[in-house]
Parts: sequence; C-alpha cells; structure tokens
Amino acid sequence: MTYCLGILLEDGLVMMADTRTNAGVDNVATFRKLRVWERPGERVIVLLSAGNLAITQSVVALLEDSVRWEEHEEMAPGPHGRLMSVPGLTAAARAVGEAVRAVHRRDAAALREQGNDFVCSFLLGGQVAGGPMRLFMIYAAGNFIEAGEDTPFLQIGETKYGKPILDRVVNHETSLAQAAKCALVSFDSTMRSNLSVGPPIDLLIYRRDTLGAPIRRRFQADDPYLLGVRDLWGEGVRQLFLDLPDLPFAPDVTPPLLGAPSPMDTDPLDEE
Amino acid sequence: MTYCLGILLEDGLVMMADTRTNAGVDNVATFRKLRVWERPGERVIVLLSAGNLAITQSVVALLEDSVRWEEHEEMAPGPHGRLMSVPGLTAAARAVGEAVRAVHRRDAAALREQGNDFVCSFLLGGQVAGGPMRLFMIYAAGNFIEAGEDTPFLQIGETKYGKPILDRVVNHETSLAQAAKCALVSFDSTMRSNLSVGPPIDLLIYRRDTLGAPIRRRFQADDPYLLGVRDLWGEGVRQLFLDLPDLPFAPDVTPPLLGAPSPMDTDPLDEE
Repeated sequence: MTYCLGILLEDGLVMMADTRTNAGVDNVATFRKLRVWERPGERVIVLLSAGNLAITQSVVALLEDSVRWEEHEEMAPGPHGRLMSVPGLTAAARAVGEAVRAVHRRDAAALREQGNDFVCSFLLGGQVAGGPMRLFMIYAAGNFIEAGEDTPFLQIGETKYGKPILDRVVNHETSLAQAAKCALVSFDSTMRSNLSVGPPIDLLIYRRDTLGAPIRRRFQADDPYLLGVRDLWGEGVRQLFLDLPDLPFAPDVTPPLLGAPSPMDTDPLDEE
Repeated sequence: MTYCLGILLEDGLVMMADTRTNAGVDNVATFRKLRVWERPGERVIVLLSAGNLAITQSVVALLEDSVRWEEHEEMAPGPHGRLMSVPGLTAAARAVGEAVRAVHRRDAAALREQGNDFVCSFLLGGQVAGGPMRLFMIYAAGNFIEAGEDTPFLQIGETKYGKPILDRVVNHETSLAQAAKCALVSFDSTMRSNLSVGPPIDLLIYRRDTLGAPIRRRFQADDPYLLGVRDLWGEGVRQLFLDLPDLPFAPDVTPPLLGAPSPMDTDPLDEE
C-alpha cells in the first residue's frame, strides 16, 4: 500500500509520500514515490504515485525517457509527453494521462489474464512560468481532477486514516509550515493504523511563483522531529480525550431505555 | 454506508451503531442497526449489522422469527437458530452465521444476476448465564472471528476514519464510561469525513455478569452531550496541532536537498 498527499495553498504546494511497497507481507521494500522535474526559473513539476509498482514505474519511465532522450520519438507517450516542454500544468496532467494509457495498452491485457487489475493513481503538482500553480489527481483511465480553493488537498492510496486531521485543520489559507506539519500528523496516524504505509517519508514544499528550489526533506523512521511530533501528538490526543466531559449517565446505573427492548424495522430498503 | 463498533472490555461491552442507510445520495433513510435479545438474569445478546439492508434485515427477520414463533420450524435458520435458547455466545454466532447462509441460498443468485454482491457483516456481543462475555464479527460467508484481550474492538462498515482514536486510547482495561466516550469520538470523526454515516447514534453498554439491564441511549444529531464533545474535541485537536513544534527548517529558506533533483528507482516490484 501507499499514502500520498498533495495540498494546494495560497502560498504554495505541500507534497508528501511514504516509500513502502509490498507484495504480500513478506516482500516489503522501499521505493521513492515522489519525483521532481525542475528547471530553475522556469518550471517545477512534482509527481506522486500509488498502485501497482510495475505500472507506476512504467509510467514514470515513459515520462523520464521522453525528457532524457528527445530523439527517441517512439518512446514518447504522445504529443504531450515532454514534462520539460509542456506549456503548463494542465498539459503536464494530460502528458501523465497519456503515459498511463500507453502503459495500459501495453500491459493491461496481460495483467488481466493473470487476474490483476490495472491499478494506479497519481498526484501532479507544480507550476510553469507564466501560468498558475496547480494540483491534479490522475486516475488509471488517464483522466484527472483538479484541486481548488474549496478542496485544497488530494490523497491517493491509503487515504482514510489520515483524512480527519486534514479535514479539521487545512484550508486554502493555511501556511506552508502548518500544512507540512499537518501532513506529517496525517501520515503518523496512517502509519499507526496501517503497517503497509511506512517511513521514510518524503516531503516537498514549493513556494508559489519561485519556479525552483523546492524544499525537499526525507524523514527517516528515527527522525527526531518526526518522533517528537508523534509523541506529543499521541500524548496530547490521549490527554484531550481524558479531559472530555464524562457521559451524562453513569454506566452502572439503571438506564433510561430507548424504548421496547428489541423493536424491529422491517421495511426493505437497499443500503450501501 | 454504515459504521458499527463493538468493544470488549474487562468490565463489559460497549456497542455503537449509526442509523443512516442510503441507496445513492438521493435515497437516505434511518434504520436501526442495533438489536437486543434479552432475558433478564439469563442472557443479553446484541447484534449490529452493516451491508445491503435487504440482506441484513432478512437475516435479522430469520433470527427474530425463530425466537417469536418456535412452532414455525420451517422458518428456523437451522439447529442453532434460536438466540433465546442457545447455550452461549459461540452458539449464537453460529446461529447468525446459519441465518446468513440461509439468506445467501435464497437471494444470492438473484442478486448476482443483477450485478449485486452479497454484502453483509455483523457484530455479535453479549453473555449467557454460566458462560463468558464474548464479541464476534460474522462475515457474509457465515464464518466469524472473535475479539480478545489484545484486540479489544471490532468494527464493520466505514471503519477507517474512526480507527486512529481507538488505536490510541482503548485497551482491555479501559473503563466502560471511557470506552463509550471514545466510541462517540470515533463516530464523530467518521461522520465528519463520510456523509453516509450519520445520526442518530445508538449506544448500548453492558456490564459483565449483570445478564440484563444494559444501558441503551440514542444520540440525536442535536444531542447536547454529542454536540459538546464534538466542539471540545474539534477545538482541542486544532489547538493541540497548533501547539506542536514547527518544522525544524523554514519553508522560505533554501533547503537542504535530498540529493540529486530527480533520482529514479527503476527496479520492478509489484506493489499492493
């Protein structure tokens, strides 16, 4: 499993990814899921990936190849394939989508024959000179959605454990430093509840309109700041919980009943 | 969707369920998902349900029928079908499993023809005189697992948003009052992140060896205690977050880079 998070703020972008991959519980490894394409003063493009690692690495390899060897036309995933030459982030999202579709054409049938779905998703953020900063989520079909002021963060992979703190804290006006801190807390909650998400954690912070020099930081499992935040947060949450008022009825006193002991609802209605 | 939670403690059981059901976002209704079978001084059996409402109601109807009309042998789900006469909780779990399989035999093929899976799961907790208190999770195949001292809580439905606080706070020695409070916080986090889980919330608290008189309480959306806990918790978490130390590097200063700008990992390994 994987957890990746992108936050689009007034001041810039915060992108975070874990590095754990696993094929079953006995084959766990560390792979970078955060890639950066950068030309200082002109563009910063950040890609986070989740899903089948053979698929996501194939997609990234296509994108890398089209950047590295421009003469290899046959390797280019399509007319939008060059992340270092696209005119803006929407074109970059299309380029990633085209690369996803190229890998789908090549591998999906063989995967299906062996009972495997074509599973991958991506977060793409950044800025190209002359255009706005943007953040996209790209699906396995190559289509995509964009984050906006009302929905400032996007997640892929194991998204649920870490979402409540983001819902409570992050909005479009949150500072870069606070958003990065919140991202770490979100990852800590996820790692605590799901062993398949694990350190090291890669962080990238991009300040709007700088077009370069994003902060990049890798948090190892024994990183003092990460451990400090984990302890303070865990202890703080427990204390906060203990300080909440007790239930307005004592559990050892005969209760105010809800009504008859076992009333039944028998109307049919499809749930889900 | 649905969220149900059962907690097995040294002192007793805490069971909680929401009441929201929906078939799409435009067909939302309220149904009780918490049922109790009780004979004071002899047994208390509590069942929580999640999944397709037509399935879960059919299962409960079979169990109810075998309790209500003992002469209706043909309606009984099997030899273990009588929750009011089984000798203990394990037999009760088998009875629920048999009822699930009876509904599967009756409905699964027709559901499959229309592209619907046979989706249901249950939490069963309680105690019968002469036996221990127990808590089970029963799957759609009619098989089940049991909670123990190391894993004191079981969840069904929309389980992830509300799990981190349980992981941090609840263990086998937690008091009934604190566990019930934690369950409410867990439900509040879930309702905040997933609209398909919603109030009213049904709570049942059973004290070990009392064999009756469980506390039952329904929290409506405007319940003063629920609203108070929600506000205190939300504000407390935000303040706790703000009090965490800032990142050890300022996001507007040139960064310590991770290494080369875009190193690539190219070994193949299947993730997931």
